[in-house]
Amino acid sequence: MTKVRVFTNILKANENIAQKNREIFNKNKVYTINLMSSPGSGKTSLLERTIDSLKNELRIAVIEGDLQTTKDAERIEKYNIPVTQINTDGACHLDANMVASVLDSYNFKEIDLFVIENVGNLVCPAGYDLGEEDRVVMVSIPEGDDKPIKYPLIFHNANVLIINKIDLLPYTNFNRLKVKEDALNINPNLKIFEISCQTGEGLENWFIWLKEQVSKKKR
Amino acid sequence: MTKVRVFTNILKANENIAQKNREIFNKNKVYTINLMSSPGSGKTSLLERTIDSLKNELRIAVIEGDLQTTKDAERIEKYNIPVTQINTDGACHLDANMVASVLDSYNFKEIDLFVIENVGNLVCPAGYDLGEEDRVVMVSIPEGDDKPIKYPLIFHNANVLIINKIDLLPYTNFNRLKVKEDALNINPNLKIFEISCQTGEGLENWFIWLKEQVSKKKR
Repeated sequence: MTKVRVFTNILKANENIAQKNREIFNKNKVYTINLMSSPGSGKTSLLERTIDSLKNELRIAVIEGDLQTTKDAERIEKYNIPVTQINTDGACHLDANMVASVLDSYNFKEIDLFVIENVGNLVCPAGYDLGEEDRVVMVSIPEGDDKPIKYPLIFHNANVLIINKIDLLPYTNFNRLKVKEDALNINPNLKIFEISCQTGEGLENWFIWLKEQVSKKKR
Repeated sequence: MTKVRVFTNILKANENIAQKNREIFNKNKVYTINLMSSPGSGKTSLLERTIDSLKNELRIAVIEGDLQTTKDAERIEKYNIPVTQINTDGACHLDANMVASVLDSYNFKEIDLFVIENVGNLVCPAGYDLGEEDRVVMVSIPEGDDKPIKYPLIFHNANVLIINKIDLLPYTNFNRLKVKEDALNINPNLKIFEISCQTGEGLENWFIWLKEQVSKKKR
């Protein structure tokens, strides 16, 4: 019983800080996403593709969450946009306080789209609000089509599902319809994109949608 | 500070229970592995392949760890061997106590190889001893070759690294040498296997090694 109470308190404290983060984003009309997936599904690749294609239309800034190393932040830094690496030092997800602790380093008046790339983990990040507007969960074809039923919470709590590496479909027995059906059973409001960061297929729809969200936020 | 102390106590309590599990395995000369990876790297597929090939030579039993669903246990049950599904109900890894709570359902006098398949997660299972003899971490080609440097603890604490889905090498930019070099830098004692559960490539070496470990245990 104690254990549950501690965890509830942790989540409640997180929620309060997330709300403060959200106020900062809202006040500055910054559209913010929390990007989550297993290790290696392609979060950073999607970011690279997105920044490369939209950097002249949107002012983008990024938080990179990782256990250690600055590898992902280095990949993003090449595009010459504001990026901070949060190293969780072993912790399995970002929390609102970690995000809050680096927000001072951004000038949100000059940011349209703020992407928080979470630690690679399909379990733990699911329960932690960071103050984002939308939660984007990504799965990739080689991971198999059973991820929604096996890790339902993260799909339940997300707004957007991105299915990446569709270029690998011919070499696997991944069932596209099944994964979408299972995900929508868990969460009928999921907006779904099917993409390949390798070939670029499907990315245009993602870019269009992202620009729409940013312009809605500006109104 | 409190937080750290609580966590240390949890790990210490886990260690004590793991030690009791280990005594049960040792007393019965059962060779036990803790199989860990990201979601979808191929843990259950490796198990299916292993059971299918070795079921006439070794008496195998399995624990399946998952957040929810009995999907993986159902896949193993088809081989008509003892299997228990542990549903962690949201918890991101197995611990020694969860394992201890199901050991009574096995007759270890009639088991040679006991496989504990952990929850799909490259972060949290790394710190929890379950009482196993060897820890096996699996990565798959499409996850990318940066996993050892980004998630070092699990590679540091493992004895064996399995690189799966090598049939997908031609369709990715995965650098085989880099991943092995990085993993061995973290842990020079890692025994490494490169396999494809799809084509069967490399599995024979894994089977031979596994049989050797079982027969060492029997001595």
